[in-house]
This record gives sequence, C-alpha cells and structure tokens, in this order.
Amino acid sequence: MQDPDPIAGRMTDGGHQLRQRVYFEATDFSGRVYHARYLQFLERGRSDYLRLLGIRHRELATTGRSFAVSRMEIAFLKPASIDDIVMVCTEFRGATGARITLHQRIMRDEDDLLKASVIVALVGPNGRAVRLPPGMRAVFGAKEDPST
Amino acid sequence: MQDPDPIAGRMTDGGHQLRQRVYFEATDFSGRVYHARYLQFLERGRSDYLRLLGIRHRELATTGRSFAVSRMEIAFLKPASIDDIVMVCTEFRGATGARITLHQRIMRDEDDLLKASVIVALVGPNGRAVRLPPGMRAVFGAKEDPST
Amino acid sequence: MQDPDPIAGRMTDGGHQLRQRVYFEATDFSGRVYHARYLQFLERGRSDYLRLLGIRHRELATTGRSFAVSRMEIAFLKPASIDDIVMVCTEFRGATGARITLHQRIMRDEDDLLKASVIVALVGPNGRAVRLPPGMRAVFGAKEDPST
Amino acid sequence: MQDPDPIAGRMTDGGHQLRQRVYFEATDFSGRVYHARYLQFLERGRSDYLRLLGIRHRELATTGRSFAVSRMEIAFLKPASIDDIVMVCTEFRGATGARITLHQRIMRDEDDLLKASVIVALVGPNGRAVRLPPGMRAVFGAKEDPST
Repeated sequence: MQDPDPIAGRMTDGGHQLRQRVYFEATDFSGRVYHARYLQFLERGRSDYLRLLGIRHRELATTGRSFAVSRMEIAFLKPASIDDIVMVCTEFRGATGARITLHQRIMRDEDDLLKASVIVALVGPNGRAVRLPPGMRAVFGAKEDPST
Repeated sequence: MQDPDPIAGRMTDGGHQLRQRVYFEATDFSGRVYHARYLQFLERGRSDYLRLLGIRHRELATTGRSFAVSRMEIAFLKPASIDDIVMVCTEFRGATGARITLHQRIMRDEDDLLKASVIVALVGPNGRAVRLPPGMRAVFGAKEDPST
Repeated sequence: MQDPDPIAGRMTDGGHQLRQRVYFEATDFSGRVYHARYLQFLERGRSDYLRLLGIRHRELATTGRSFAVSRMEIAFLKPASIDDIVMVCTEFRGATGARITLHQRIMRDEDDLLKASVIVALVGPNGRAVRLPPGMRAVFGAKEDPST
Repeated sequence: MQDPDPIAGRMTDGGHQLRQRVYFEATDFSGRVYHARYLQFLERGRSDYLRLLGIRHRELATTGRSFAVSRMEIAFLKPASIDDIVMVCTEFRGATGARITLHQRIMRDEDDLLKASVIVALVGPNGRAVRLPPGMRAVFGAKEDPST
C-alpha cells in the first residue's frame, strides 16, 4: 500500500521515517550542513511522527499546551552536503509523567550521519511541564520507559 | 505518469511546483511564518526546478560557479501557519546574459500567500556575474526576456 | 556622549544604525552570506530602531498586535562573508494608515552590500492591518509619506 | 578598562561572555525561543571566544581546516522570549588530540536558561579530524582534559 501523503513520512515498526532534502539554507561556509540545522531535520521528523499518531501542534496550542525539548544528546558522526537526501529516523523509547524519550538518527543511504537521544516534555501555558493525557500515552503504546 | 521522486516537486507547463510543510522552525512568536523563512521556501522551489532541469548546485560548485540572488520584489499577502502545507510555484520568465528572471508564488489551496519576482545571476569564483553557458540557456527554452 | 546600551544600536539623523557580526550560521556553502539571512539582519535593525523609539514587540503582543512585513524590494549588491562586521542602516521614509515605509542598507565599511525598501504594517489579532495609533505616528515624526 | 570592541564579547577568567539580543527570528509560534536557535547563540559565543584568542574561521579556512561540533549534551532549563537579552558563557574545559571540550551556559540575569557540554574537533579538507597545532593548544593553556 502506498502512503497517502508521503510529505509526512511513514510509520515504521516502533517509529517513523521522513526523507528530507538538504537545500542551500542548511549549509554553511564549510560546505557542509551547519550543525544546528540538523536539529531542524530532527524536529521535522518528530512533528510528522506525532502528526501521523494524530497529535497536532496547532490543536495542542488551542489548549495552551505545546511540546518543548528538555534534553538532547547528539553525536555528529559524518557531515551531509548540499543536494543530499537524508532519512530522519525517529524511534519511541518511552513515556513517563510529562516526558517522552525518543531516539533519532539522520542517515544517508546506509551511513549514520547523526545520532540523538531527545527528551520532549508537554508544557502548559506557564511553561511548566504537564502530565501527558492518558489518550496521548496510549497512542505511544503506553509503554513505561524503564530508563527514566 | 507518476513522478519518480516527488521530493523534488514536479515540472509544470513553463515552470515547477513543490509542496512544502510549515514546521515549527518556520514560525515566529506572532504564530505565523517568519517573513524571511518564506525566502527559504522560494529557494527550495528554485533549487528543485533547476534540479529537474538537470542543473545541480554541487556540480556547478566544482567549477567555482554558483547562483546568487541579485534582486527580489516580494509581496507578502496572507500568512501561513504551523502545520500548513503550501505549494511553491516557480515560473521561468526569461534569461539574458548572466541573469535568469523567475516569478514565484507561495499558495495554500487556492490562496496566494506571497508573490515574488526574483532575478538570479550565475557568479564565478570572484563573485562576479558570468554569462550563462549556451546549454543552460537552452534548458530554459532560450527565450530572451523582453523586459530586461 | 556614549550609547548606554550599544547592543540596541544607535539613533541617527532620521534613522538608526546597528553593527552586526556575520557568524557561521549566516553563511551557506557558497562561502558567502545566504541571501535570506540578510533579511534577518534587516529585521534586527528595524526591531532595535523601534525599540529605541519606545515601541516593544512584547508590549504590542499583549494587545494582540504585531508588525508584519507587507512588501520588500531588495537589491543584493555585494556579498558579506564569515567574520565580517556589517552596519545595518534604517531610515524612516513615511507612515500612512497602517503602514510604515523604511529604507534599509547593509554596509561593510564604505561599501553598500544590500539596499532594501521595506513596508511594514501593524496587524491585529486576525492578521488584518490596523491603523497606527497617533502616538506611534508622532514618534516617527508624523511625516506623511508622499509616495504611498 | 573598557573592551575595545564589545561586539565580540569579553574574556573572563577561564572563558568568555557574549551578550545577545533575542530577535523575532529566534522565536517560534510557542512564543519562546525555538530550541535549535539556542545552538546558534552558543556558536556565536564559541566563535567570539576563539576570535579573542586569535583564532579566525576565515584564516583557518585558507588552510582547508575548520572547527566542527562532534558532540553536544544540552539541558534546556527555562525558555527565553522575544526582546530578552541573554548572556552566552563559554568555559574551556580541556583539549586532547583534535578535540576541545567546552562548557556553555545561556543566562538571563541570574537564571540559567540552558547548559551544554560541547566537543568541537578541528577537521581537515576531507572532513577528518586533525591534531590541534601546538600553538593553538598553547592558546587554551595547554591543559590536558582528564575526562577525555
């Protein structure tokens, strides 16, 4: 079966994959992708993963809530360059309280370019973390993350 | 016939169309897309239009040449918001000497969000404009732009 | 007399000047500043000009209003490069209804790198232009712009 | 004594401090700074720290070398907002082989907004790490980092 709208990537067993092009804007004068722009690729992957799970930023915002990154560990392994097509791979690793732990990779063909561990928190209008609603936890499989 | 690789958009009669998602990164605290980010959408459209015409930034770079924007006129008509899907429409309007004139629009469904007239120049290693090679002019249809 | 807080630049006769550094993030793989980033330099100049005139984005936002760019004409004349210090020069040209017209230049020493004509509009919560309050017009000198 | 050019920040005991304004461009539709933009603030701090130590990106580039981030751990503690002035604090923690370890913080007044541990590597034209030249190690105090 074909994806109805590949612009949002596709669900995989335990996660999500999104193909992205490296345009001019993502590069810097070293000729490679500027390190902070990889985080934008990661965020596009997370957003589309949530989207395909039925969680929309705009709807959350109407209730004053949004997801905020609270912690990242990133290993920059190999650089990407202009015109490259990369795959942003997102894997759910667990959810506790207000927090979701994801592992993410950026790949070019078989090469890992970047690996990241990312913790995002659901925050309320005052910027404080709020408990994930049960429906949202269920969407991720309601697995408790033993490591957090 | 289906596009072999829709990530690069598709050629249209006289131009090119590219669908793009509005992610977090493109918005600002007004809740809408930050004005300068629309230019990145436009550049993605131009890059993929050139790509489907067979012109690659990376190959050009090996000969010390690249395209640089030399002039833009932009009317910001309606704002785009997070989660929107927009269409970047690029239309060739003419080529003379070192310069290519394009008209570009960003649309959401039937609405024009932005209209732009863009002049790009091929520049050499010293940053000076260099004449478009005949092969490249032919690719665009070798139409002379009467307005420039 | 010295500026109390040079981070916001300084008022000039009829406008404002802001010195800015070109960091890695503003460059692209051509080795020069990515064209859309110049707009961010321009916006920093406009924001600090408004700031020194007593107009704050955050305070406007509490009343549901913000400034939005409605039209730009930009001539990219010479490129800036990593490590450069550039001067963003902003000049008030007139205000009518909801709109303010500014001329902006980015200079490196005596060289003009970019010239722009920018129209910004005050918009309300629904994104529609709202009339500039008399106090704000007075701040700019209440000059009517004959050209708009 | 006053800093001759405060645009590059100032050296501190064991590091560097750079004041930066939060402009429109750094925010996202949540109303706060977009997480990936904090990395740009960090990079401006590192660049100006190196600059005041006498190490210039452009000069390095003439020998085909540049600094690349190889690893980051980032804790996002409190958000910054439009119009804020933040302080980017960079502290040298050690250098071994091709790698420099830095600790960085972004503060607003007395509050820590973000803490990061950053490893940057000097890379050659092929993207491979190259040993730091002795002169560069001397500049940092030639302290060996016991933790790496």
